Amino acid sequence: MHNEASRDHNLKSVEELGERKIIDIILKHLEPMPNMPIPFGDDVSAVDIRNRKLAVIKTDMLVGKTDMPPEMSLWQAARKAVIMNISDLAAKGVKPIALLTAMGIPRDLKQEDIVQIAKGQNAGAREYGAYVLGGDTNEASDIVISCTAFGIGERDRLMLRSGAKTGDIVAVTGCFGKTKAGLKILLQGLSAPQKLRETLVDSVLMPHARLKEGLSLAQTGVVTASIDSSDGLAVSLHELSKASNVGFIIDNLPVAEEAREFADLHGFDAVELCLYGGEEYELVVTVKPMLWKKVEKASALIKIGRVTQNKEITLKVRGKTLPIEPRGWEHFKTN
Amino acid sequence: MHNEASRDHNLKSVEELGERKIIDIILKHLEPMPNMPIPFGDDVSAVDIRNRKLAVIKTDMLVGKTDMPPEMSLWQAARKAVIMNISDLAAKGVKPIALLTAMGIPRDLKQEDIVQIAKGQNAGAREYGAYVLGGDTNEASDIVISCTAFGIGERDRLMLRSGAKTGDIVAVTGCFGKTKAGLKILLQGLSAPQKLRETLVDSVLMPHARLKEGLSLAQTGVVTASIDSSDGLAVSLHELSKASNVGFIIDNLPVAEEAREFADLHGFDAVELCLYGGEEYELVVTVKPMLWKKVEKASALIKIGRVTQNKEITLKVRGKTLPIEPRGWEHFKTN
Repeated sequence: MHNEASRDHNLKSVEELGERKIIDIILKHLEPMPNMPIPFGDDVSAVDIRNRKLAVIKTDMLVGKTDMPPEMSLWQAARKAVIMNISDLAAKGVKPIALLTAMGIPRDLKQEDIVQIAKGQNAGAREYGAYVLGGDTNEASDIVISCTAFGIGERDRLMLRSGAKTGDIVAVTGCFGKTKAGLKILLQGLSAPQKLRETLVDSVLMPHARLKEGLSLAQTGVVTASIDSSDGLAVSLHELSKASNVGFIIDNLPVAEEAREFADLHGFDAVELCLYGGEEYELVVTVKPMLWKKVEKASALIKIGRVTQNKEITLKVRGKTLPIEPRGWEHFKTN
Repeated sequence: MHNEASRDHNLKSVEELGERKIIDIILKHLEPMPNMPIPFGDDVSAVDIRNRKLAVIKTDMLVGKTDMPPEMSLWQAARKAVIMNISDLAAKGVKPIALLTAMGIPRDLKQEDIVQIAKGQNAGAREYGAYVLGGDTNEASDIVISCTAFGIGERDRLMLRSGAKTGDIVAVTGCFGKTKAGLKILLQGLSAPQKLRETLVDSVLMPHARLKEGLSLAQTGVVTASIDSSDGLAVSLHELSKASNVGFIIDNLPVAEEAREFADLHGFDAVELCLYGGEEYELVVTVKPMLWKKVEKASALIKIGRVTQNKEITLKVRGKTLPIEPRGWEHFKTN
């Protein structure tokens, strides 16, 4: 029987729910495949093939209206749609082999626009040694570029979200905050000196996936958990926490120099830019502390904190301890 | 140098180009993977894994605005997005194992709508023994459900578009015309007696992929070419013709009884409904004539004609020979 309360619940709009709650609702209604090699909700999905190899697949969609800031060309958007997916494979330590793209194309696009989209996709794939094998085109109101990446992973080398252990070191492949600053420039028209502006805007328009780093880290065998930071550093830590059932103390916040400069210029909090951004494609990993040296040799990492048993995620900064909140880039929510 | 003519050419809108020309433009700008096991432009794409096995992938997008007629529920749309992709694997003789879905969701959808979408996807996958492993959600103006299907194929059993030979028999897994009639009911409000209406509308809202047939046919090893008929019978024949470099004489048009009834009722040409529809998921195959018996045992097929050396595609009906035109369902074109 539907009572008043459950009806209200069912009538919640997606705007009230937010993306992460929507995903939870969807997953609750999918029958799980027996012996799934990678659980629901990790960065990628996989199917067992044989000899402990996995077919690894990921699909992620770019929508013009919400994911294409001003100044982003169609070439850049198409390239980015590919990079987003490659980044997820990178976070698991899997080399992308092939990509497919399904596209929604508004009627007013021109032939040259289509050429730019095709070239952008191809460029994104070739940068990482992969190829676009095919796709599908459709008419839509928005530009939509839905990309699928495919690779073969080794079951024993895959870096999941779920393996972080108390005492592990938390590390990242680079600094954070540039994209949130870049989006403020592009979306809110904030100013910055030319060179700084270029760097910040470029971080949004021309993202890079940490594939080399992901592959090297996976080979070491000492990374206990890994995620890409496309929803921002804070959300990535919260996702790792949820999957690994641990907490984090972050005592060395990896704020990008340019983000700090931009924050100073406009009186923003650089910590905010660093933690609560998104559309960044660094890897956030946890590492067995005894084996840190091995990881350090494989890839330049920045230590940012420790894994804790209690599930809080906190920031130690200037002697104070502050909670790191589970917010950042999320569709349907006003960011 | 861009002269006036080439500028005009580049300024052609996607509406003038139409979907098939857009696909040609995209493919021209993609660097082909060396030794692609399946060429560009077939129903699916593939990557060699080992022991003559292929990882087979397909992505196909459903867009609310253009692909969801009135009366189609979100559950049905989500299920259909899955079926469309499974049908392409079926046409190649590949069993689907896993599906991913990337979705664009308008802000005004409710929680219950999300539940229906999730259930519809799951139902579509489970009907064919596959599982939805994950996906991605985004905000968009239209409902967009972009689905990717994955399966493992045997290289030597794969039924491509390209193998039809002069003298082969052309056959289909079922009759055509119901969906075009159903769409006329749904989109133009045409009437039909209740039982007929139900059958025709149902063919649009609840499509079925010919997976069992595709798998059995592939096992026989005597199907020389195969395609699914999602763009209509005429376009499917033209696509097979292009890929195999042959023509066809169709002398037994597989008009569905219900399509004929509907045509009689409204004074339409049943031939038109049968040839130039779309959103149908029958398989169109060619078979070595000496081995027809083997195929007949594997699956109930309807012989509709012969493969010819000259590349014309013609229909023989009541003593007349008519050309079969390359038209049918095509995005961006007014159908």
